[in-house]
Amino acid sequence: MLITRKVEFSASHVCRIPDLPAEENERIFGPDANPHGHGHNYVVEVTVAGEPDPVTGMVMDLKELKEVIERQVIATYDHRFLNDEVAPFDRVVPTVENIAADIWRRLEQPLGRGLHRVRVYETADYYAEYSGSAQ
Amino acid sequence: MLITRKVEFSASHVCRIPDLPAEENERIFGPDANPHGHGHNYVVEVTVAGEPDPVTGMVMDLKELKEVIERQVIATYDHRFLNDEVAPFDRVVPTVENIAADIWRRLEQPLGRGLHRVRVYETADYYAEYSGSAQ
Amino acid sequence: MLITRKVEFSASHVCRIPDLPAEENERIFGPDANPHGHGHNYVVEVTVAGEPDPVTGMVMDLKELKEVIERQVIATYDHRFLNDEVAPFDRVVPTVENIAADIWRRLEQPLGRGLHRVRVYETADYYAEYSGSAQ
Amino acid sequence: MLITRKVEFSASHVCRIPDLPAEENERIFGPDANPHGHGHNYVVEVTVAGEPDPVTGMVMDLKELKEVIERQVIATYDHRFLNDEVAPFDRVVPTVENIAADIWRRLEQPLGRGLHRVRVYETADYYAEYSGSAQ
Amino acid sequence: MLITRKVEFSASHVCRIPDLPAEENERIFGPDANPHGHGHNYVVEVTVAGEPDPVTGMVMDLKELKEVIERQVIATYDHRFLNDEVAPFDRVVPTVENIAADIWRRLEQPLGRGLHRVRVYETADYYAEYSGSAQ
Amino acid sequence: MLITRKVEFSASHVCRIPDLPAEENERIFGPDANPHGHGHNYVVEVTVAGEPDPVTGMVMDLKELKEVIERQVIATYDHRFLNDEVAPFDRVVPTVENIAADIWRRLEQPLGRGLHRVRVYETADYYAEYSGSAQ
Repeated sequence: MLITRKVEFSASHVCRIPDLPAEENERIFGPDANPHGHGHNYVVEVTVAGEPDPVTGMVMDLKELKEVIERQVIATYDHRFLNDEVAPFDRVVPTVENIAADIWRRLEQPLGRGLHRVRVYETADYYAEYSGSAQ
Repeated sequence: MLITRKVEFSASHVCRIPDLPAEENERIFGPDANPHGHGHNYVVEVTVAGEPDPVTGMVMDLKELKEVIERQVIATYDHRFLNDEVAPFDRVVPTVENIAADIWRRLEQPLGRGLHRVRVYETADYYAEYSGSAQ
Repeated sequence: MLITRKVEFSASHVCRIPDLPAEENERIFGPDANPHGHGHNYVVEVTVAGEPDPVTGMVMDLKELKEVIERQVIATYDHRFLNDEVAPFDRVVPTVENIAADIWRRLEQPLGRGLHRVRVYETADYYAEYSGSAQ
Repeated sequence: MLITRKVEFSASHVCRIPDLPAEENERIFGPDANPHGHGHNYVVEVTVAGEPDPVTGMVMDLKELKEVIERQVIATYDHRFLNDEVAPFDRVVPTVENIAADIWRRLEQPLGRGLHRVRVYETADYYAEYSGSAQ
Repeated sequence: MLITRKVEFSASHVCRIPDLPAEENERIFGPDANPHGHGHNYVVEVTVAGEPDPVTGMVMDLKELKEVIERQVIATYDHRFLNDEVAPFDRVVPTVENIAADIWRRLEQPLGRGLHRVRVYETADYYAEYSGSAQ
Repeated sequence: MLITRKVEFSASHVCRIPDLPAEENERIFGPDANPHGHGHNYVVEVTVAGEPDPVTGMVMDLKELKEVIERQVIATYDHRFLNDEVAPFDRVVPTVENIAADIWRRLEQPLGRGLHRVRVYETADYYAEYSGSAQ
């Protein structure tokens, strides 16, 4: 049984490799390389696997799941410029793939082995999914 | 090859364990424990796996799939108060996890081994997925 | 200039006229007349009209708008059985039209003359809009 | 007859009044005042009014409408940090209200009297509509 | 008070003026002029205005509204090639504007003066709205 | 790590087996068998699996992915009558299952072993997913 909770945050980012010249970054990332940054309403789906508790009927206490996501994801990412304000994006390009992997890492300890999948939409038409290194 | 049919029903429910006092239920389920009940537009996605028939190009006759879902799910759940009107929710808490498992059971016999996954959205931001006991 | 804020609440209701026999209510309201009740995830859009403040650029303080809607609509309607728990639905049929008019009345005093339109979706495919008696 | 074309762009912004201290801006704009900026996938709906041409059946050549929006809106706003890169947001707070009014001004000359309404979604739950000064 | 019912149909069409050569049609309509036709899932929103009945709380019997739309719109348009099978599109270009006006005409008699607006989406990003000749 | 790109095309089709009489086709495919054809806005999600490049943070160059989908899917399918204009649908029924398998085949060579899944929505309520023969 899988349960999934969807949340949203608004952030800005720049996709560029600091060591490369601007033209090279633009060749790789296109307009995403604009050094002024641009932004998205990111949508995150966090999926937890488990057996429903036979008494409560829940895989996991939904209020607790909401609190974990609020604390580990929203409080960190929402209304931030990722490159400047959220590690590791000072040194790692904040592509949607790297954001999904970072959110996985932030949820791994509090959610434990139940954490099943993290999906991040950068736009309605483009998203990444990460399920840990054993994917 | 997987095919998925999406349907919707409107129902109300209360999440509470009858043997527990009201305060305890509210601690576990929050506002979902309000004994008057509240409701949702549930969205259900039923996924069937199989090889497309080489002549018709269909994994399963779509008209038949629609009829099975109409009969087994919509006719049972739509416009109902689940705790009072739909077994087993007289004795099992109608969480979205238990609803997904119940819909699986109702579809298992008519759809047979092709039944692959049942996903139920309680709201646009929260859903459960069930794939049978071998999940 | 119009600004619109969208929120969601989950509630249950029964559409029936207490003085009429069950069959008559079913003739008028169809399955909505089931006396056990059923529910929806209602989506509400509140629209406010005004000139943006020349300094802040806002028609109305968005935080204040959110608080008013939270207090006047969500705190009243969310996770409730409307017929039993929310006046005037003890004596008025809680159709989506009457819900829209009631939300208008609850917002009229705190939002003043800026209140422009209330739209309420009962399902994704059916909604009502109310703009006060001068519509 | 109205026709509406919907487009999307990704941009970042800061909502703050340069002359005010940081705390005052945070009081007015909340987390939107974070000086590092944050971003959104803005959705824009441009509505044009007119009579369909009796021969072509179109209010306006759709290809031309797409080109005007591409040139006047997308090329200006997409993948930009609005405060630094798009006038007048160097001196005007880029609230969604002011963005809607600015898009109206950019479309007013090429679309002429047919321009009927500009709607801008900052998130799925918050949007502004502008119909010119005669609203 | 306005109520709106949303329905969907699937149809195909060609946008071309029979008297013009193919190149001219392609210049005007682009790929829509492909004489083989192409198709859409059209979404139609029908809006009715009125005062809610003081007893039932409904502007109009929703079951009756559904039946009228089913009979006048869905039964006519769904799974059809509009140019060949639905008058007046044998002689009028089936642009989304002309489809909206035709649906208005088909609903005008059964819905009477309550008919307020017909909106037709050709795609999620392009739609027409018609409110009768007095628009 | 999986990345998914969503695109849309508009096409028309007929579901019928040429060797069968009309009544038999109608029994199998219902209104989809109308020989005049009808159409849909098909939505396609292409999913690619891989490890993000440690420097760029991307599983695959997004601009390249867009170009491959544009060339192999959109340029072939968009604004076409599938039965007449897109092989193999001159001899294979263009059900959504067969369309998903055909899109897989068109992407298999340019995307290589990274191609993970093709999902095709015929309507918002019905879709097929294909993951190659090893599904």
